[in-house]
Amino acid sequence: MLERFKVPAEDRVIVPEPEVRAATEQIFRSMGLSESNAILATDVLMFNDLRGVETHGVSNMLRSYVAGYRNKTLNPRGAITTTRETETTAVIDGGGSLGLHVAPRGMDIAVEKAARYGMGAVCVTGVGHMGGTGYHAMRALPHDMIGVAMSSSGRVVMVPTFGAEPRLGTNPIAWAAPAGEMAPFMIDIGTTQIANNKLRLAQRVGAQVEPGWLARMDGSPIMERSNIPDESYMLPMGGVREQGSHKGYGIGAVIDIMCSSLSGIGPGFISLVPGFHLLAYRIDAFIDVGDFKQSMDDFLRGLAATKPAPGHERVVYPGQLEAEEEAVRSVEGIPYHSEVIEWFRSIEGELGLDFSFT
Amino acid sequence: MLERFKVPAEDRVIVPEPEVRAATEQIFRSMGLSESNAILATDVLMFNDLRGVETHGVSNMLRSYVAGYRNKTLNPRGAITTTRETETTAVIDGGGSLGLHVAPRGMDIAVEKAARYGMGAVCVTGVGHMGGTGYHAMRALPHDMIGVAMSSSGRVVMVPTFGAEPRLGTNPIAWAAPAGEMAPFMIDIGTTQIANNKLRLAQRVGAQVEPGWLARMDGSPIMERSNIPDESYMLPMGGVREQGSHKGYGIGAVIDIMCSSLSGIGPGFISLVPGFHLLAYRIDAFIDVGDFKQSMDDFLRGLAATKPAPGHERVVYPGQLEAEEEAVRSVEGIPYHSEVIEWFRSIEGELGLDFSFT
Repeated sequence: MLERFKVPAEDRVIVPEPEVRAATEQIFRSMGLSESNAILATDVLMFNDLRGVETHGVSNMLRSYVAGYRNKTLNPRGAITTTRETETTAVIDGGGSLGLHVAPRGMDIAVEKAARYGMGAVCVTGVGHMGGTGYHAMRALPHDMIGVAMSSSGRVVMVPTFGAEPRLGTNPIAWAAPAGEMAPFMIDIGTTQIANNKLRLAQRVGAQVEPGWLARMDGSPIMERSNIPDESYMLPMGGVREQGSHKGYGIGAVIDIMCSSLSGIGPGFISLVPGFHLLAYRIDAFIDVGDFKQSMDDFLRGLAATKPAPGHERVVYPGQLEAEEEAVRSVEGIPYHSEVIEWFRSIEGELGLDFSFT
Repeated sequence: MLERFKVPAEDRVIVPEPEVRAATEQIFRSMGLSESNAILATDVLMFNDLRGVETHGVSNMLRSYVAGYRNKTLNPRGAITTTRETETTAVIDGGGSLGLHVAPRGMDIAVEKAARYGMGAVCVTGVGHMGGTGYHAMRALPHDMIGVAMSSSGRVVMVPTFGAEPRLGTNPIAWAAPAGEMAPFMIDIGTTQIANNKLRLAQRVGAQVEPGWLARMDGSPIMERSNIPDESYMLPMGGVREQGSHKGYGIGAVIDIMCSSLSGIGPGFISLVPGFHLLAYRIDAFIDVGDFKQSMDDFLRGLAATKPAPGHERVVYPGQLEAEEEAVRSVEGIPYHSEVIEWFRSIEGELGLDFSFT
């Protein structure tokens, strides 16, 4: 994450991970989630906070989930049903549940199918937010599989290249593969220039946006560095046509098809609800697992050892910084904006919970 | 394709598609290819030329293939062998063949497996150039499947974000899905800012490159519009970090893993040979085919009907312009640079062939 998105030092409160985890599980349980779903949903948020992906941790998302349970747009007791199934594929419906705990169940089905047949893919409907795609892709790794997770968004925010009307969500995708000695490879990206949540985070820390990140309401790209305008659309990954925005637009559209059209809920800009797609590849259906991990170690070591360009200290591979951050935060705690901790204090009182924050 | 890459009017020669196809088949046969492989390899090149993807048609590629057969880096009679296979997956080796006619066989295997089990994926080793990924992805469409094709490159040209040494090829990916009344959706992109072949084409037509497309030999991005330098590295899709180059770098790395590490040939920057990955999804394993095509029509119509931003005439979806170009070129012929036609004349004499160009 760019430096400007980090919590400024003077607003930072460091909290041990187990305390935030326990508090978050309490909140989910008090919203009506089962014990196992509360644990799973919390695990997704803590995964993000531990790895430095604060856009998808408790800071931005938890209060919106609470609001969703309160206004009944989220069902705390939605049941998962299977609407279509083959040897390698399934479409499941979450019955209006938060996506955080339905997506892992979807990936588990994909993994089971891949264990038996080599590959598995599951589309998910009837769900709220997924909580970032990274967690769900990485869920395949302990099974010696490659994992992929995608989500179409219920909110249409991205203008196509040359367009003046939004047609796609931030439509993120994550792709993860295990290695041997090296930390796993994991790329987790939105297909807009900037994640939706990152805009909110930028507003909180007073950061500016770069040229080619946003478009004015007539679709024209904002090509100067500026504060975040009150109203804007998001540009596809790449920004403008000369910088490859047609590629970001196209990849965003692919994710829409895989999550929305293939799942049966219809194009994102018509259905306006999220859909997921989860995919698992069993590595030894192609190559011995040991050989693959050796190859991955060689690949990742080579990337990390790349001679840096002037002005840069080192080159990293996708997932490396996040793994380093996780190692630090697991021991030292997670830095939150003081305003987030105040929210925890207030919801603690409101719901009659006991977080015993130190 | 940006206007600057098109053949200038004064250098343009229009040739009917069947004449170029027949001439190209003759050339492949005279290199020693079987009748069916010559037809298949030619079909890939003509697909690209008909759709306006001249970077991957006969202009740039055919003479390099001829050189490959002559210097024995390509085997005109390489046999395909299967080195690993499960219900849904296979790894095949092309025995040193040109990838143009091996990749379609790989996709056919993926399609067969998907027809039976819902999904199929094939890694390909022991091959030369694939001739662009688009053809191979679209091969799944007549079977009512979604098709994906990727290739790692034998040539390492892309510097990672912040890197000063090349670590990845242009590593392209194509992704195609059928529609009902609308032309199919098909995105076919390299994961560098600019395709390798497009640089050569740009040199031929005297075009300039944009800021953030290339890096100097010390890894620093060239941030002014300029002529193509004698030596340069390619920047990942996105260009620089602030514009999301870490996403392009990461997607390029994913393709390297799927084509090179998963296939067993090892990381691209170590093995320095290409590998392919071909993937097919059977649509009715998720949703009825008619419903999917209706949803795709709604999606693609909506994208194409997006109100354009100031200065632009319309918004298109991936594959739309290429389908329009194909409709025109099938009837009116294909525009080639006169220099390409001269090459056909010279190879005709050299190999004792008879192209009967009008």
